[in-house]
Amino acid sequence: MSFCLISSDCHAGADGASYRSYVDPPYRERFDEYLQLASMMGKKQGAEELEGAEASLWDMGTRVKYLDAERVVAEVIFPQPGGPSGPPFYMAGHSYDVADQELTAAGTRAYNRWLADFVSSAPEPARHLGVAQITQYHDVDAAVAEVRWAREAGLTGGILLRSQPEGDLPGFNDLRYEPLWAVCEELDMPIHTHGGEVTLNGGLAESFMRPGGPAIFFTEVTWFGHRPLWYLLWSGVLDRHPNLKLVFTEQFADWVPDVLWRMDSIHERFGAFLEPKLELRPSEYWYRQCFVGSSLMSRRETDRRHEIGVENIMWGTDFPHDEGTFPESNRKLHEALDGLPEDELALILGGNAARVYGIDLDRLAPVAADLTIDDDFFAGGDDDR
Amino acid sequence: MSFCLISSDCHAGADGASYRSYVDPPYRERFDEYLQLASMMGKKQGAEELEGAEASLWDMGTRVKYLDAERVVAEVIFPQPGGPSGPPFYMAGHSYDVADQELTAAGTRAYNRWLADFVSSAPEPARHLGVAQITQYHDVDAAVAEVRWAREAGLTGGILLRSQPEGDLPGFNDLRYEPLWAVCEELDMPIHTHGGEVTLNGGLAESFMRPGGPAIFFTEVTWFGHRPLWYLLWSGVLDRHPNLKLVFTEQFADWVPDVLWRMDSIHERFGAFLEPKLELRPSEYWYRQCFVGSSLMSRRETDRRHEIGVENIMWGTDFPHDEGTFPESNRKLHEALDGLPEDELALILGGNAARVYGIDLDRLAPVAADLTIDDDFFAGGDDDR
Repeated sequence: MSFCLISSDCHAGADGASYRSYVDPPYRERFDEYLQLASMMGKKQGAEELEGAEASLWDMGTRVKYLDAERVVAEVIFPQPGGPSGPPFYMAGHSYDVADQELTAAGTRAYNRWLADFVSSAPEPARHLGVAQITQYHDVDAAVAEVRWAREAGLTGGILLRSQPEGDLPGFNDLRYEPLWAVCEELDMPIHTHGGEVTLNGGLAESFMRPGGPAIFFTEVTWFGHRPLWYLLWSGVLDRHPNLKLVFTEQFADWVPDVLWRMDSIHERFGAFLEPKLELRPSEYWYRQCFVGSSLMSRRETDRRHEIGVENIMWGTDFPHDEGTFPESNRKLHEALDGLPEDELALILGGNAARVYGIDLDRLAPVAADLTIDDDFFAGGDDDR
Repeated sequence: MSFCLISSDCHAGADGASYRSYVDPPYRERFDEYLQLASMMGKKQGAEELEGAEASLWDMGTRVKYLDAERVVAEVIFPQPGGPSGPPFYMAGHSYDVADQELTAAGTRAYNRWLADFVSSAPEPARHLGVAQITQYHDVDAAVAEVRWAREAGLTGGILLRSQPEGDLPGFNDLRYEPLWAVCEELDMPIHTHGGEVTLNGGLAESFMRPGGPAIFFTEVTWFGHRPLWYLLWSGVLDRHPNLKLVFTEQFADWVPDVLWRMDSIHERFGAFLEPKLELRPSEYWYRQCFVGSSLMSRRETDRRHEIGVENIMWGTDFPHDEGTFPESNRKLHEALDGLPEDELALILGGNAARVYGIDLDRLAPVAADLTIDDDFFAGGDDDR
């Protein structure tokens, strides 16, 4: 058997100044002001030790070289999470100016436009599945229009949802967001959350600057990424939209069995009294419609794969960040996955992602030809690793 | 071997109107207004099917009768979580008037005064460990004074902490709260959080009234109770106060191993860069100073007891609520605990609680004499349950 690697978690973003022409003119002055600050706060943007790793965020030639080196056939692209290459008007994990949601939306549009150009500049655009950032929760019609635009523009990876709306907007169980879920189902655009986002509502950003703040952040930030699961599930979104897909990326996967157990218990005990009523048990929606984009994958998660769902786990590299497996993804495959049955490996390494994102593997056959991993790559369990 | 049952999770509260005389006079008018609303919203306050269960919240005779019937030798008492018997000026899981923190504090003092009288009215006050509610986070000196008053007044169960301060106060990793942790260590008052509290900061109360709200609440509310663990741990509170105890009550225990694993991983990777530095690994603080008050205990949790800590689990009944094991606590002991080694049973059922709360078992010997459970109560594993 041979394996086709698809990374469910990669990042891209412009060399900061290049966003300017993508920002609508009324917001360019504020962009200049924003960029100056973002550049000062800008952290390292790619694996430090590798020449050009940072440039692979915006330079397609470098990017393809590294994807090839790691034998990654296709990738799902998320925004760089901050610094000058992050989406404009987004800083320290939340909106630069929370009170000005039109400004945030202008940054979102600029990032999405840049990303569409970046993907279409690739030798094989079908290899790069861009995920459009959506922040227009104050104007759901605008959010829906942005999803339609993104799909048209070739961003076929789906959308990135904030973990909860900012400001005084209601949570995602409010019915006002229904058109957003509907258009994502209609256009087969998976909805993602991505680990690392700081919502101001939860008190996380505020705690960060106080003693222990960064460790508190690391301990709890992923939970905020999980939260839309139960907001959408219990409010009936997965029931009403059986073809909608939710993907939880770079926020670990070990939490899934406990959350499913808890939700199934609640359903068993209180299901008859809940509104809306759900046809299925929560875990049944999970296995049908929910997925993890599991970069930073550990043995701990591999060991729980049957409870998480072998068809629900998508391997990822977090390229070009060095907290992921890049640039040692092939070696780290062994650590996390050696000894698994071949059919499970095939699903986790790329089969699930191909299905979730509708990746055209026939079209990618010329790319895959040189990159496919042979069946002797993985040991039988008690190997020489 | 014989076993002494101590319930780490029970509830009490006045018959609503009886709080009035405990409320400081300037707040009595607002109390009348509050009580009218609380009575309208008041849910059932004890196990429905049992005559007098509700009255056991405030009637010591009834209470002792039921504790005896369940063979509970000693109990830790938390506030009734709402309705007319809940602490005054506390409603729907948060402060009645979040903006008026002096009003909230007046309700807290009234509840604590009532509880001190309630406990001292018992035939054997040492059997009832009252937990004082503390809400004065806007005025830490007042919070410290309340802890000292509570200890003097015979509330030896410790204090109940909110899961996070309300309003625009900083999180519990802020150094301003240091005197509160110090006085709790000095007076050996364990600090508790209790499941079910709705903090307005987290968006939970706001989501409750929308589709799926109650199930969303059940899914995530316990997480807010866990949160002070990492706020206090990472900000060095457990390091600076090695005799301080934290207790996480009625919020399940299955989450503990994953949280310890995550925090130990963070410590291993980033510990050298964190401020403050911690002498021990996070799990070492847990095993030394942290405990679960595990009412609603399930096999799922029993099976993880070695990771949670056999010395860190305290059984509870949630008396007189019917979502707990009351009034079938003895039967449900079998479901959760049959087959465990006797030394582990002895710790979980009462030994740990006796140690954590400094319960004087010699003084309680006359009570325990009639209530102790014999070694034939528990089966050897493949019993007739």
